[in-house]
Amino acid sequence: MPDPRLAELSRWLPDLRLLTAPGDLEHYGRDWTRRWTPAPLAIALPANVDEVQTIVRWANERQVAIVPSGGRTGLSGGAVAAHGELVLSLERMSRVLDFDAVDRTLTVQAGIALQTVHEAAHCHGLIYPVDFAARGSCSIGGNIATNAGGIRVIRYGNTREWIAGMKVIAGNGELIELNRGLIKNSSGYDFRQLLIGSEGTLGIVVEATLKLTDPPPISQVMLLALPNMDALMQVFALFRTRLALQAFEFFTDQALQHVLAHGAQRAIDGDHPYYVVTEFDAVDERQQQMALAAFEHALEQGWVSDGVIAQSEAQAATLWRLREGITESLAPRRPYKNDVSVRISAVPAFLHEMQALLAREYPQIEVVWFGHIGDGNLHINVLRPEDLVEEAFIAQCEHVTRLLAATLQRHGGSISAEHGIGLVKRAYLESTRSVAEIALMQGVRKVFDPNGILNPGKLFATG
Amino acid sequence: MPDPRLAELSRWLPDLRLLTAPGDLEHYGRDWTRRWTPAPLAIALPANVDEVQTIVRWANERQVAIVPSGGRTGLSGGAVAAHGELVLSLERMSRVLDFDAVDRTLTVQAGIALQTVHEAAHCHGLIYPVDFAARGSCSIGGNIATNAGGIRVIRYGNTREWIAGMKVIAGNGELIELNRGLIKNSSGYDFRQLLIGSEGTLGIVVEATLKLTDPPPISQVMLLALPNMDALMQVFALFRTRLALQAFEFFTDQALQHVLAHGAQRAIDGDHPYYVVTEFDAVDERQQQMALAAFEHALEQGWVSDGVIAQSEAQAATLWRLREGITESLAPRRPYKNDVSVRISAVPAFLHEMQALLAREYPQIEVVWFGHIGDGNLHINVLRPEDLVEEAFIAQCEHVTRLLAATLQRHGGSISAEHGIGLVKRAYLESTRSVAEIALMQGVRKVFDPNGILNPGKLFATG
Repeated sequence: MPDPRLAELSRWLPDLRLLTAPGDLEHYGRDWTRRWTPAPLAIALPANVDEVQTIVRWANERQVAIVPSGGRTGLSGGAVAAHGELVLSLERMSRVLDFDAVDRTLTVQAGIALQTVHEAAHCHGLIYPVDFAARGSCSIGGNIATNAGGIRVIRYGNTREWIAGMKVIAGNGELIELNRGLIKNSSGYDFRQLLIGSEGTLGIVVEATLKLTDPPPISQVMLLALPNMDALMQVFALFRTRLALQAFEFFTDQALQHVLAHGAQRAIDGDHPYYVVTEFDAVDERQQQMALAAFEHALEQGWVSDGVIAQSEAQAATLWRLREGITESLAPRRPYKNDVSVRISAVPAFLHEMQALLAREYPQIEVVWFGHIGDGNLHINVLRPEDLVEEAFIAQCEHVTRLLAATLQRHGGSISAEHGIGLVKRAYLESTRSVAEIALMQGVRKVFDPNGILNPGKLFATG
Repeated sequence: MPDPRLAELSRWLPDLRLLTAPGDLEHYGRDWTRRWTPAPLAIALPANVDEVQTIVRWANERQVAIVPSGGRTGLSGGAVAAHGELVLSLERMSRVLDFDAVDRTLTVQAGIALQTVHEAAHCHGLIYPVDFAARGSCSIGGNIATNAGGIRVIRYGNTREWIAGMKVIAGNGELIELNRGLIKNSSGYDFRQLLIGSEGTLGIVVEATLKLTDPPPISQVMLLALPNMDALMQVFALFRTRLALQAFEFFTDQALQHVLAHGAQRAIDGDHPYYVVTEFDAVDERQQQMALAAFEHALEQGWVSDGVIAQSEAQAATLWRLREGITESLAPRRPYKNDVSVRISAVPAFLHEMQALLAREYPQIEVVWFGHIGDGNLHINVLRPEDLVEEAFIAQCEHVTRLLAATLQRHGGSISAEHGIGLVKRAYLESTRSVAEIALMQGVRKVFDPNGILNPGKLFATG
């Protein structure tokens, strides 16, 4: 171990697992963005809270930057270590610590995978309702760091709503216990909420107490084909009023083509420009009739051109795969991603402007988009043509993102709905947050992390 | 206007309404605590955001402390001006600014009364679900400042859950617009959440965008008489599992006696030590049968000794008055109040210790307590005997509160569930928040309010 700082860390923590092999540095130094070349100093795999705290104290003394690391499924570069940082991976801290049936909470170490949380909740007849496609790889700590959203936000909200408490090693090395599972606690600033979505720049979440809830009622899944974009908001308004929605997801024919090419099964014949997958409560015949009536009304109005209701769980999974498989089907192309949001009421006007912008600025480039229309969130995936080199492609995408950011700003939207700012969106933060707000963020960061050792350069320039 | 600072403020803002009459100073200088002698410099009643911003800038230049002021129904002294502060009352800024049917949001000025918000939502067939007895007087700005809870938290959560966005004049004089009604927005620190519950020490909320929701299903109200305290958690567990609870409120016979003496109507005969008022969904006969079956099961088990189900809205109101009238019935006695919380699972053990503590420490003093058992929140009202002077009474209560705080700390609870810390609980903050957390709070405060002009001395010592 040639680096004297690492030698010292090993003296402080003789049992700490440290990795420095090139393969490990590469594996742990990057996330799903793949845009930066990983170059961490080393990988630390602490086994407990004490080790995390000691690492943070060492980092403060030696001025070593730390990149907190969960499942590294992030899409904004928040977990990238490209400048000699120590990657602090929580993957060995992945246990369920406690379940409380009265409080209906699950206390876990931060490195636990979302899917393991789902399974643990299920064992107790409850659910942890935050869910999205990366569930098998992403960690709760990472979910908290980006306030992860996903496909059930319309019903259950974001990660923010489901954190009853957390233990954090702040950037200054202090262990703080935030909220401790209380439902009511008006005792000063709610730092739990401040930490959620702070992308590892204020503290390292080491444990979290998650709220659980009852499983949703029996549901049905419906796939709808839509003739045009204006119909989308009409169908949404109709379905939202008439049904108890659990999800309302939207994608284009172009997205469908990628999923089908990736092995998914076609569910509706014919050519249709837009599709919706929606899931709603269908406990009894009355609710099922209401769904059918809503569908028929939409058909009569010309808002949908075709549709199918899943007749089995297997078919429901097939329909869901058409939406959930999109990201995976595009992954080999390493798309440039925008993840934007506006208020629901601003969706129609924004969509029109956005479509015109994309058509104008990417004339030769394939753009695949889809989204969680029920919460105003659109995912735009730009695919690099084979004849365009990466650098020129990124430059073009950055140019368009600047225009998109200006459009978002006019509509009061956000440059990052659920991926976070990280490195990828940093240059556009001012389209969503004012200069005054960013200055306050930098100030707050200095309070929690006076030496700027936690994830420096992510989110904003470290002042 | 003798004070040169006020003369200058009037030059900066010739149209600003300023009050300095002794009656006004007294009226606006205190809240419901009545423990401090009001002594503000003056009362400013700005008419718009610009005036608020200019006042804050003036206060920064002239080092004048500001006490932001809503309905002054607070119970922790957060709105008290006892040291020559300028009271900045938002009572003239009380309009509804916008309703959006698609976003289902209501945008209001911060000085609007909670009840006016309820009425505005009702006009659109929706509800703003945060509710408590002070609804007619308290303001949304004050609700946000203390993250107000109330009687529907078990179903809808606290104020925190219902704020989609807000405009704030930060202590440094900057106008910041937080979240702007977005459902998904992962673009850095969520200062909206930081401001909620910050008791006017970081910024002055001038506008808020409130989330609305569908009215709850048709409900029934039940009053239960309980033979002992252990039965309370049994009944709660049973009812929570079997019914869709909207409220589950608890009070003692002693509390009942005060409400009855204050004119409420007895609903159950006989002597019973404890009572519960609960409200639950009762849409159809099935749900009504389930409620009846739950009640009968509790009766068989000996967990309840009697009960009554409201047969009309009028009777439901009568039953609710038995719980909601308690605070008002005690108000003439100006009780010393504790407002504490623990996790639900910790309620039984805490209740036993708390009861023993109160019995031991207040042998000659009447203590009335009740609470929101469904969210672990207990209200303790200590009544001063006529033969005990105020000063000695308060001293004794403070002594007991120190012991109570230590008990809470052992059970992981909070010294303030929903009233806030203000002046009243400041000495006990360390029982709930660690020294490290309080230092971080003081640091964050300095970032937002570098000159310490906003509500100094509230929550914690201004560093």
